[in-house]
Amino acid sequence: MKLIVQKYGGTSVGSPERIENVADRVLRSRDQGHAVVVVVSAMSGETDRLLSLAAAITDTLVPRELDVLLSTGEQVTIALLSMALEKRGCPARSYTGTQVHILTDSAHNKARIQEIEDQRIHADLAAGRVVVVAGFQGVDEGGNITTLGRGGSDTTAVALAAALKADECQIYTDVDGVYTTDPRVVPDARRLERITFEEMLEMASLGSKVLQIRSVSFAGRYNVPLRVLSSFEEGEGTLITYEDENMEQALISGIAFNRDEAKLTILGVPDRPGVAHQLLGPIADANIEVDMIIQNVAPDGATTDFTFTVHRNDYPGALAILQQTANKLGAREVTGDDKIVKISLVGVGMRSHAGIASTMFEALAREGVNIRMISTSEIKISVVVDEKYLELGVRTLHDAFNLAQPGTV
Amino acid sequence: MKLIVQKYGGTSVGSPERIENVADRVLRSRDQGHAVVVVVSAMSGETDRLLSLAAAITDTLVPRELDVLLSTGEQVTIALLSMALEKRGCPARSYTGTQVHILTDSAHNKARIQEIEDQRIHADLAAGRVVVVAGFQGVDEGGNITTLGRGGSDTTAVALAAALKADECQIYTDVDGVYTTDPRVVPDARRLERITFEEMLEMASLGSKVLQIRSVSFAGRYNVPLRVLSSFEEGEGTLITYEDENMEQALISGIAFNRDEAKLTILGVPDRPGVAHQLLGPIADANIEVDMIIQNVAPDGATTDFTFTVHRNDYPGALAILQQTANKLGAREVTGDDKIVKISLVGVGMRSHAGIASTMFEALAREGVNIRMISTSEIKISVVVDEKYLELGVRTLHDAFNLAQPGTV
Repeated sequence: MKLIVQKYGGTSVGSPERIENVADRVLRSRDQGHAVVVVVSAMSGETDRLLSLAAAITDTLVPRELDVLLSTGEQVTIALLSMALEKRGCPARSYTGTQVHILTDSAHNKARIQEIEDQRIHADLAAGRVVVVAGFQGVDEGGNITTLGRGGSDTTAVALAAALKADECQIYTDVDGVYTTDPRVVPDARRLERITFEEMLEMASLGSKVLQIRSVSFAGRYNVPLRVLSSFEEGEGTLITYEDENMEQALISGIAFNRDEAKLTILGVPDRPGVAHQLLGPIADANIEVDMIIQNVAPDGATTDFTFTVHRNDYPGALAILQQTANKLGAREVTGDDKIVKISLVGVGMRSHAGIASTMFEALAREGVNIRMISTSEIKISVVVDEKYLELGVRTLHDAFNLAQPGTV
Repeated sequence: MKLIVQKYGGTSVGSPERIENVADRVLRSRDQGHAVVVVVSAMSGETDRLLSLAAAITDTLVPRELDVLLSTGEQVTIALLSMALEKRGCPARSYTGTQVHILTDSAHNKARIQEIEDQRIHADLAAGRVVVVAGFQGVDEGGNITTLGRGGSDTTAVALAAALKADECQIYTDVDGVYTTDPRVVPDARRLERITFEEMLEMASLGSKVLQIRSVSFAGRYNVPLRVLSSFEEGEGTLITYEDENMEQALISGIAFNRDEAKLTILGVPDRPGVAHQLLGPIADANIEVDMIIQNVAPDGATTDFTFTVHRNDYPGALAILQQTANKLGAREVTGDDKIVKISLVGVGMRSHAGIASTMFEALAREGVNIRMISTSEIKISVVVDEKYLELGVRTLHDAFNLAQPGTV
């Protein structure tokens, strides 16, 4: 018998019929002998409905009251799912965040979980009940209702799994797992059976939006095995864990990409200490997030060239700020390009294998894909290319590393 | 400065626009220098929406989970009203039943309030905040969400007023007060400025459905002055209190009536102890509620005649049961009539004035209204008449006791 925490998102519980499907799925796990705790989101559309009621009254949403309002969404779902389980003869009990004391700080709309009371849930499980918990919400020390912000239900599930020392935390979504790359770009992209937390973090931040980064990092920190599955199809999904001996020995797990990038370059900046801060400080002050940062010494030795990437929407703002900075610092020139994309190879295997980068560059060169920027980390190599090369580049790399076949690089 | 508890029902908060009207009304009380606690119901239609979601999943609603589901209705309203108040520059704070610890027993869907924590509310009021509390809901000792059943928000308001020792509990509805009788029957029916708890109980149970009996009786028990007002029109409404010296000295406060009555008579029952129980026991066992009961000694001295009234819907069932009982007891005959109505004069003044009954009977006789039954209590005289005389009877009595003019009988 395992203790499993299952999380179903808004689409998975989007109608009474879908809630019944979820009940069936919960029962199958239970019939296999597992103890099950279920975390659910608000029914899809419900949060928007509540927000539009509030918007009809005021433009300035009061954070504390917004949490009181939005937390009703999951509360409806827990009641309906518990009824669906009871109808199937399965004893169930629903709990709001307040009721199982999901203690958070007091940062309304983006609170962070500090502690969860596990005794009540363990008692229900021991009595043979399925426990249904409202995701996305908690309560602060003053008894005020809080919500966790984006991806909050995933975080609730992972935090519950950690607090209960669950064997597995299963995140049910509308995809059936994590793929080697986006199947819409590469039709023979393959579902991964396993992936490490580190790889998943790189995949997620690079655009594979299966899981919220925050919950993956949370799961990694507390070593909660995380599984991504489809709520609509059968299948084993993808298990996200720490690397172990049994792990399939692929060098590369997948290829992530990001379509909406732009790059900015400032040329001939006098090379003295603190120049990077002088360049990026004003960008950060304007709340523009910077992704890749590359600095090269220029041929003359006295000045330097400096390049960074931002989201395409932020390109005009960043360009204007950089131009001002260039004037102040006496830099030679500012250039930019908002028709670029980023393609990244991700895999823990590359840590111990130097040939990956050259294989990557060679494959791209063979197809005439010109590389504009390169950046590497322990488990990732990213290249920036013109946006017209996105699909060609991703398919070329998927083939070059033979990702359609499991564990064969 | 007074401490006032105001309650707004589902119609009064039925749309964002109406919630804004309620906020304006709360602010007017506050601008008059009063401390205000507001109790709200779910927006009209919301409870039905939630019930239909549950009905799509199961026929057998789980009482505990039904309360989790339905209690979201008021939670939405408290958040929206608090936002509307904050938008107007009025500091406000919302609380669910759980948050202000409206402790109830564990009878889900029909729980009874046992205790309310008043410290938190008093602290908010002292800090100049308006406190907005979800009606209809509470929490049991185990931390489970409960609901109070029909009229629950009225009960919440009265219980809060009692716990906080409020100066007045104001119930906002879609009528602007309690009338001497139904204005649809008597166009010059007059709104009462005051009425006693006892009179209100008689009026309510007799068909003036302004307030739930339970909350009136609760208010009377804890001596909470209760005021009924319209949420849509200006006005002082009707104050419900105990009798005092300043009370307007009318003998009769109003005329209640009930259209859907039926009467059953059993004639020539052998007159021995326990016969009333033998007659009414089987009726009660069939869950039929009996209203008036009248027993007369028959002329022969050895048998008795026995009449009672029931709701018209229960007439066929009651008649069949009574026929069986008659056979068993050897009674002479069973008769009945389901085309009757009941008209009642209500007023604490009649306690000290014997002439009321004769004035009543005389006025009805003058208009040819034949009285079929009479029943009296301390503050009420009821007559049963043929249903065709209902309007004539009510108007005749309204004139005879001069109810269109305040305090002039």
